[in-house]
Amino acid sequence: MNRADLPANVCVADDVKLGDNVRLAPFVNLYGCEVGDDTRIGAFVEVQKQASIGKRCKISSHTFICSGVVIEDGVFIGHGVVFINDRHPRAVNGDGSVQNESDWKLEETRIRAGASIGSGAIIMCGVTVGERAMVGAGALVTHDVPAHAVVAGHPARVRRLMLAANGTAEKRGNQNAAD
Amino acid sequence: MNRADLPANVCVADDVKLGDNVRLAPFVNLYGCEVGDDTRIGAFVEVQKQASIGKRCKISSHTFICSGVVIEDGVFIGHGVVFINDRHPRAVNGDGSVQNESDWKLEETRIRAGASIGSGAIIMCGVTVGERAMVGAGALVTHDVPAHAVVAGHPARVRRLMLAANGTAEKRGNQNAAD
Amino acid sequence: MNRADLPANVCVADDVKLGDNVRLAPFVNLYGCEVGDDTRIGAFVEVQKQASIGKRCKISSHTFICSGVVIEDGVFIGHGVVFINDRHPRAVNGDGSVQNESDWKLEETRIRAGASIGSGAIIMCGVTVGERAMVGAGALVTHDVPAHAVVAGHPARVRRLMLAANGTAEKRGNQNAAD
Repeated sequence: MNRADLPANVCVADDVKLGDNVRLAPFVNLYGCEVGDDTRIGAFVEVQKQASIGKRCKISSHTFICSGVVIEDGVFIGHGVVFINDRHPRAVNGDGSVQNESDWKLEETRIRAGASIGSGAIIMCGVTVGERAMVGAGALVTHDVPAHAVVAGHPARVRRLMLAANGTAEKRGNQNAAD
Repeated sequence: MNRADLPANVCVADDVKLGDNVRLAPFVNLYGCEVGDDTRIGAFVEVQKQASIGKRCKISSHTFICSGVVIEDGVFIGHGVVFINDRHPRAVNGDGSVQNESDWKLEETRIRAGASIGSGAIIMCGVTVGERAMVGAGALVTHDVPAHAVVAGHPARVRRLMLAANGTAEKRGNQNAAD
Repeated sequence: MNRADLPANVCVADDVKLGDNVRLAPFVNLYGCEVGDDTRIGAFVEVQKQASIGKRCKISSHTFICSGVVIEDGVFIGHGVVFINDRHPRAVNGDGSVQNESDWKLEETRIRAGASIGSGAIIMCGVTVGERAMVGAGALVTHDVPAHAVVAGHPARVRRLMLAANGTAEKRGNQNAAD
């Protein structure tokens, strides 16, 4: 993406790697991250440094994607989704000193290709959401989600697995055939 | 509303129909929608095309109102409320192709006059929230809400009906008397 | 903080009292509030009039802090946290007239020193969260939280108390020793 093509009212730091044909809504704040080709990012979205978003994703408005989150290709992220990377966040230590990078441990999160995260979902750190899995709106995801599973609830539980007509899991496109 | 009166730091597309005396906070993103007279819209709110907001409403900060949502007159929408219009959202189809308008079905949502949606609530698509109903903070609304009902929880359940002194449902103003 | 040092893309009203070394991300909206020294405020945060934030706090992105909220020193507020100050919000009264300041009652909320509020949590009005307490991600807090307690869930319940090596509650720094 040619940086001259950026719309008004966006903050995109110089160190952001934007693929071709990325579309940004107004009021986005990106720094130190990577966004793949043909991905769309909605209004009021922040993506932090060391976060990675694949190709052909849709990141909906009001969503927060933190350092340590890897989103593979073709993922849908709903509106107002919150990712987390610190299990025990604090502003200050027990002695009152301000926390710095050495006072907490980043836990990574991965959303695999084609998955869908419903609006308002909260994704705890350290989890993996499997391929083409679907996380319901408002779910609090505290454990790994199997591929093709539908999870929902607070905390989220598996409700069903999506099956294709041939009895196998939902048909997957060529992009995933190697898995 | 005279477009010249718009505050700085807002994005209001040319196709937005703003009533008289609409008040907009900074950092709002409106396109293709309709907003009635005397309605107030808070910061970090997005209203999409084909959404309609009535008169004398209050739409609080951080809320997302999507296509297919109809909000009648005198409605309170809290902070960080999320509406939904696609039950099975995906960025890409099973074959990896990017979804377009023909790959999903919009389901409409209606919030009837005088209702109140608590902060952080999530409103699933296809529901109607009845007149003067009250949805609790953080509720996940998956079914229709009767008029004058108070619902809360995840998923939301009816907790009580509001009654007026005369034993009928809470007194309604003239604006609703014809219903 | 020298007002000339404010970054672009922020709205900070003239009546805001900013301490020394406050750091503001882009797209913040502050009016009538007070922010203590060395506090950091993330993107897409709104802080209303008559809200107070202490020193060395971290207020994360997408959070809404309303009038009547007092946040003491060293508090962590996660992403997308919503505070509430009106238990029965309405846009209009039963007779259809627009509500004004005399039609509702503000209930105050206090977050004591060193506490941590997880991302996506909703804090009902009228509660106090105790010193160094930890509110889990996505929790709906409807009652007071004791000092050093860990609460989670929807609605939030106490899960455990944090203890220090000597069997007393987690060691507290000097800043709290006078309490």
